[in-house]
Amino acid sequence: MTRNIRLTIEYDGTDFSGWQRLRRRPSVQEEIERAIRAVTRESVHLIGAGRTDAGVHALGQVANFRTASRLPVERIPPALNHHLPPTIRILEAAEVDLAFHARYSALGRTYRYAVLNRPAPSAILRNHAHHVPQPLALDALAEALPALQGRHAFTSFRATGSRERSTVCTLRRAEVVRSGDIVIFTFEADRFLRHMVRLMVGTLLRVGTGKLPPQAVAEILAAEDNARAGPRAPARGLFLVRVDY
Amino acid sequence: MTRNIRLTIEYDGTDFSGWQRLRRRPSVQEEIERAIRAVTRESVHLIGAGRTDAGVHALGQVANFRTASRLPVERIPPALNHHLPPTIRILEAAEVDLAFHARYSALGRTYRYAVLNRPAPSAILRNHAHHVPQPLALDALAEALPALQGRHAFTSFRATGSRERSTVCTLRRAEVVRSGDIVIFTFEADRFLRHMVRLMVGTLLRVGTGKLPPQAVAEILAAEDNARAGPRAPARGLFLVRVDY
Repeated sequence: MTRNIRLTIEYDGTDFSGWQRLRRRPSVQEEIERAIRAVTRESVHLIGAGRTDAGVHALGQVANFRTASRLPVERIPPALNHHLPPTIRILEAAEVDLAFHARYSALGRTYRYAVLNRPAPSAILRNHAHHVPQPLALDALAEALPALQGRHAFTSFRATGSRERSTVCTLRRAEVVRSGDIVIFTFEADRFLRHMVRLMVGTLLRVGTGKLPPQAVAEILAAEDNARAGPRAPARGLFLVRVDY
Repeated sequence: MTRNIRLTIEYDGTDFSGWQRLRRRPSVQEEIERAIRAVTRESVHLIGAGRTDAGVHALGQVANFRTASRLPVERIPPALNHHLPPTIRILEAAEVDLAFHARYSALGRTYRYAVLNRPAPSAILRNHAHHVPQPLALDALAEALPALQGRHAFTSFRATGSRERSTVCTLRRAEVVRSGDIVIFTFEADRFLRHMVRLMVGTLLRVGTGKLPPQAVAEILAAEDNARAGPRAPARGLFLVRVDY
């Protein structure tokens, strides 16, 4: 009997080509497919909820695969972790309805972007936060963020050359908080376009450092022209935190 | 004219033999001495406040060296960082009195120990927290900690084979807090013995998981016998946070 298994996954994206394969570096998806093969003796196709880019991390990526294996679900995470590099950890496994599809069933995704905002760079956070030495004006960021919330065509904030049929997303949450030297942006939406969070954060950082007025974010969004957004903030600060179903 | 320069240093200890050289792996001290040589053309001896072991990290290690270089202090951190691996960052440099000695002038040191306390291991924190899957009883830890505070012979909590003349330390602060899945121990003392924090944390984790009653910590301290303490918690959770002068 075929079972549909949902995995919750944490990974450090630093040394991967991203969720999917790109040129020579290994992808997170391939590594997990290989571990599943080692455990179940089956070649499976693993479906991920979000296709994170090279260097992007995940605290709660969700993926699913079908298997004939009878391995109890509680034994799946330790079994897969045994075959995975320490930069990928399976946090949880559950048997779900056969109709469950990690990508198409997802109702929302939450991303977080971490900025280290102090004069000196960090050795510990070198791969997990974007270093901005200039002081960020949190009030300006808080003024700019509400313009992004809601249902809009995010054409200005998508990767050059991407061809999604629709650029309309509903951004349900767009927040920024400071905790000591760390500034965290949180975005929750029904869907995200390629590079969307990094382009929004790159634009917002220009606001935070006084290079753009807060109202420029609304204007850039309305322009539906990605030449005006960005620059794209580096991958290292970005985390896929949660996927909702 | 000779100047005495004090550096504040952050490092990721994962790939180093520790502050000092040990066998073949590079040490943090050597790497910084090499960077100073590249910048000043002088061979200097760098004095560190705390000799962290292999795998132990620092957020605020302090060190000093003498130099004839006239390089303005504000240019020292970027100049050294240019020659250092990204796992070592100079946060700050200051010119200090010639009598200043990073080790002997120190009045106190603060260490933090990070425990990831949840069922699943973490990919992101794999080198920066000790994973304890069993739920920790914070109330038992809070009950055990005060026994360690104050001036005692910490003979029970020192490395086997170490020969410090005195084992007396004044532990001014011994605290534990939980923030989500992370449990952080903080210890501040005039001095620490080799492996002292890791032996205290290893002992406290037995209390937190119910293997020892809280009052056992006071008994182990009073026994002045390191066979009863520990096991030593792994290096990866330990951070030298601050040195006070």
